[in-house]
Amino acid sequence: MPCKVEILSVGNELLFGNTVNTNASWIAAHVTSLGAAVSRITTVPDNLKEISHAIRESLRRKPDFLITTGGIGPTFDDMTLKAVARALKVPLRVDKSALAMVQEHYARRFPNRKITLTRPRLKMARIPARAKPVRNPVGTAPAVRVTVKETQVFCLPGVPKEAKAIFRESASKAILAKTGGMIFAEKWLRIRGIMESSLAPIIDRIMAKWPKVYIKSHPRGVEGGGRPFIELHFSISSSDPKRAEKILLDATRDLADRLKNSGANIGPVR
Amino acid sequence: MPCKVEILSVGNELLFGNTVNTNASWIAAHVTSLGAAVSRITTVPDNLKEISHAIRESLRRKPDFLITTGGIGPTFDDMTLKAVARALKVPLRVDKSALAMVQEHYARRFPNRKITLTRPRLKMARIPARAKPVRNPVGTAPAVRVTVKETQVFCLPGVPKEAKAIFRESASKAILAKTGGMIFAEKWLRIRGIMESSLAPIIDRIMAKWPKVYIKSHPRGVEGGGRPFIELHFSISSSDPKRAEKILLDATRDLADRLKNSGANIGPVR
Repeated sequence: MPCKVEILSVGNELLFGNTVNTNASWIAAHVTSLGAAVSRITTVPDNLKEISHAIRESLRRKPDFLITTGGIGPTFDDMTLKAVARALKVPLRVDKSALAMVQEHYARRFPNRKITLTRPRLKMARIPARAKPVRNPVGTAPAVRVTVKETQVFCLPGVPKEAKAIFRESASKAILAKTGGMIFAEKWLRIRGIMESSLAPIIDRIMAKWPKVYIKSHPRGVEGGGRPFIELHFSISSSDPKRAEKILLDATRDLADRLKNSGANIGPVR
Repeated sequence: MPCKVEILSVGNELLFGNTVNTNASWIAAHVTSLGAAVSRITTVPDNLKEISHAIRESLRRKPDFLITTGGIGPTFDDMTLKAVARALKVPLRVDKSALAMVQEHYARRFPNRKITLTRPRLKMARIPARAKPVRNPVGTAPAVRVTVKETQVFCLPGVPKEAKAIFRESASKAILAKTGGMIFAEKWLRIRGIMESSLAPIIDRIMAKWPKVYIKSHPRGVEGGGRPFIELHFSISSSDPKRAEKILLDATRDLADRLKNSGANIGPVR
């Protein structure tokens, strides 16, 4: 069983379409490179019911990790932690070490000013009972970590710089501890001059021969003269990096052999 | 009740993180501009069970539209239509007009060659019973449309150029027919020199005064000298464009008034 990770992105701006969800793809790429598999990404609005439903649904699928982004700041529509509390049926409460983190942050940023702990500021230290705050090295609101049965939940901020920094410092380590050094290896090939529908049965045969290798074709369109242009992504997860590389190489060579007389060209992508 | 739209993105590449889900944000932006609201975006892998579960879950939430992208091509891992059939408990079958669309496409693209209808090519014409094929003006695989109780389902290809062309030709018209000319208006403001935690209670007051206006703050970091920098997004959905613009203008002016003595600067973003 691979280590399964779900991502829950919270934010109306993602559903308005004026913000592209680069947090999710950044986290997904990092999770993949740690040898775990992202099994689902869900995006919901800043709505308490929607967020807590999505959290409950995710926990029911029992991923090893659930990583949320967004909704942990000081404004009225930052309600991810309230939703976590509701999904877990625990109260929200001001956490002492979370409060210390918020205060330290203001003291560091405004050394010459006294920053009153207003309600919105205090809000950032209100976290679900049972949860632990996680240091935010580049922003105000601490992240939050809580374990629910088999799932470790991390709630990260929506600001990309903060989400990435906290992921690197905390979630990535927890995932690596779980996967125990699985690696993900990949290769891209560019194929010109064969239609995806002609390539499909060849890919089937290669995947049957190399069952650990996953191959996905991405049609990139048609070039001048009507020559189709496809990118193929080969990937494999393994605990043995050298062996993984060898299998990928063998599989791509197998493809080259099978295409020898088809008139297609093969080349690397990146 | 606003017209609710869900997006279901299918594709391992989105969960590997090597492809950013720009299809979802493009569709979301267009849905929003048509006066409807995207209520959820879900991304699942190329896995029959995962896709059909996600479709069933979505239908249970009864959105007006469910738009899927990806998984309708000729390769073995294109299984969105099979998943739709499974979720709807209907068989897949070769649809005559879908087959005609596939054949026409090949005849247009390769006028001097006879293209055999191999299994992978025939696959693109196999659609769920009750569904209707939708013309793909720029690619091979037709899209698919099927109504399930209160939900109109559109299955679009994953290739962005194709997804966009078909959305414009079909789904957008169906959404517009449903919203009946609702519009979405927005304004961005850039605020410098006030912390998000200080701005939060002011935003609360403005939203209480202008209940149709939704305001979201996006902290963009701290500038030289420790001046915080925030972008504020004001938005409103309305059937009356002029009135919507007027309300947005009033709400942003209200904010400017309230910030007059705070030392903060306000300016437009775009």
